[in-house]
Amino acid sequence: MNLKIALLPGDGIGPEVLEQAVKCLQAVEETFNHNFTYKEALVGAIAIEKKRNPLPNTTLELCKEADAVLFGAIGDPKYDNDPEAKIRPEQGLLRLRKELELFANIRPVKIFPSLIHNSPLKKDIISKTDFIIYRELTGGIYFGEKKINAEGTVASDLCEYSEKEISRIAHLAFKAAKNRRNKLTLVDKANVLESSRLWRKVVTKIGESYPEVVLDFLFVDNAAMQIILNPRQFDVILTENMFGDIISDEGSVIGGSIGLLASASVGDENALFEPIHGSYPQAKGKDIANPIASILSAAMLLEHFGLFEEAMAVREAVDKSLEKSVVTPDLNAKSQYGTGQVGDFIAHNIVDSE
Amino acid sequence: MNLKIALLPGDGIGPEVLEQAVKCLQAVEETFNHNFTYKEALVGAIAIEKKRNPLPNTTLELCKEADAVLFGAIGDPKYDNDPEAKIRPEQGLLRLRKELELFANIRPVKIFPSLIHNSPLKKDIISKTDFIIYRELTGGIYFGEKKINAEGTVASDLCEYSEKEISRIAHLAFKAAKNRRNKLTLVDKANVLESSRLWRKVVTKIGESYPEVVLDFLFVDNAAMQIILNPRQFDVILTENMFGDIISDEGSVIGGSIGLLASASVGDENALFEPIHGSYPQAKGKDIANPIASILSAAMLLEHFGLFEEAMAVREAVDKSLEKSVVTPDLNAKSQYGTGQVGDFIAHNIVDSE
Ligand SMILES: [Mg+2]
Ligand SMILES: [Mg+2]
Repeated sequence: MNLKIALLPGDGIGPEVLEQAVKCLQAVEETFNHNFTYKEALVGAIAIEKKRNPLPNTTLELCKEADAVLFGAIGDPKYDNDPEAKIRPEQGLLRLRKELELFANIRPVKIFPSLIHNSPLKKDIISKTDFIIYRELTGGIYFGEKKINAEGTVASDLCEYSEKEISRIAHLAFKAAKNRRNKLTLVDKANVLESSRLWRKVVTKIGESYPEVVLDFLFVDNAAMQIILNPRQFDVILTENMFGDIISDEGSVIGGSIGLLASASVGDENALFEPIHGSYPQAKGKDIANPIASILSAAMLLEHFGLFEEAMAVREAVDKSLEKSVVTPDLNAKSQYGTGQVGDFIAHNIVDSE
Repeated sequence: MNLKIALLPGDGIGPEVLEQAVKCLQAVEETFNHNFTYKEALVGAIAIEKKRNPLPNTTLELCKEADAVLFGAIGDPKYDNDPEAKIRPEQGLLRLRKELELFANIRPVKIFPSLIHNSPLKKDIISKTDFIIYRELTGGIYFGEKKINAEGTVASDLCEYSEKEISRIAHLAFKAAKNRRNKLTLVDKANVLESSRLWRKVVTKIGESYPEVVLDFLFVDNAAMQIILNPRQFDVILTENMFGDIISDEGSVIGGSIGLLASASVGDENALFEPIHGSYPQAKGKDIANPIASILSAAMLLEHFGLFEEAMAVREAVDKSLEKSVVTPDLNAKSQYGTGQVGDFIAHNIVDSE
């Protein structure tokens, strides 16, 4: 397969972890005989510094032309400590998501057996947990009309959804369930919210086209409990923007390895892959940043294009690094391995198991 | 102190657990020389059966005249299995909260050391957790304008808050913090929502009147993580209706003893106290229902009227029953104690430790 991949290293540890992800993609190219091309562009604080724009036009054009975007990290303490700053690194990512119409945020929650002791949950509850959250990313209350009266005493936000917005992500989630364990859970608050009732109606209707997928429903307050009490019950969770924000952040901590989690933001024409961790500027250039989340975001990229065997080869190489403790010091304080060495180990262990 | 208490036993195990709570209040009267009067009224399925109304007028009048309402439980499978039923038991409680203008829902999350093994969280994370959630109960998106267009393809819900709605519950929460560890955390999403920014502005202003209370802020998605990662950090959490629904349900399961949790719903003129568990109709009349949540709701009633020593005496008696395993079979499968015996034990152990 030929793929044009835009590389956006961004700030902090972004460049060094992204470099390891690219190593792994190159190993996949070689092992499985694909042809990926990579073009790099500026985003975030570094783009503000060099181009006075957190998302320069050349970067946006490159991303639009690419099949996929591999993203490092964004953010710099210089801006965090200045609440008055009008131009901020994070705007680069937000605008990019909007321009590329990335309407679905995908967050896998999967437990690494060798890291299970890091989980805040007891082992018998968390072990074998493996689910994936499809969160609607461009609608709902975060983007609805905001009002405040002249006196500043009454404020409101509107949560609005259309059938079309629900339908396009629902199809993605059902397709994902078909490739997994055939279970889809819609998280909503349909006993109270009109918008949730529309979600339920539209998703139920679409479900008829996926008869092999069992669809069930959970109110968001109950979902917040079930993720703690019995996370194994979930396969694919589908939900609206704000519920997805809460539920996916809750889900991200139960495994105890939040620094290893990857995510995808997907649209009809494009897709962006990134670790969920931030730019961690304190670690920049010290060769201690953990590249695994970035490498796993590359695995999600491969899956997005149907390269499941290739993605599995990456995941197995990652598992091997964890099992053999070829990891950065955040996972093993005694470890002597740096960012680049971990990346090399994983890339070298990408093999075709057929 | 003289208190007029309305007793609403309701359905299922409601009557039998409420009876134990009353025993304990009577023990408090005797021990601490108070004078409480009790009047009972119908609510829920039993009220529908006898009066064709889940909240008969006589019940509402009784509650309005009372200083506080002690509530059992509500709900009957007959209605749960009939989605077409127009009159439902739960309407009785919802209307009562509305009529009494109970705008603050208060949910303590406190760990019982003897039940810590039931928690889904690891012991070192959950131990010594002790916080209380103040959830706004009558405003926000659950009660905002709901719309659906004629074609049924676009639906919306409005989240609206006024300064007054925020202010009255904020004062309650600050006062609670003053009586505890002087820390208040406002949970919101002020980086995105206009209504959250109003919450932050109003709560910050009110905080100036409570200089001894340290106020901090947490976005709701981060709060959903922190409750799992480090629940000990919280003292009083204040939040709007929907965030409170999610966060308090999440909080209710981390202790592993959801069946023992009590709650209060408080207004300017009245207050209602109830266990958070349901009517559990399968256990009705079998003398196996756990009365502790109902007894702890009576302790919250005492605290509401400033009877802190009395409430502490009730809590210490409950702790004793747990330590000595004088508990119902849900907490100890080998236990021979019934609902009434546990109630008797706790009531007999209410002593003035002065
Ligand atoms: Mg979030
Ligand atoms: Mg709830």
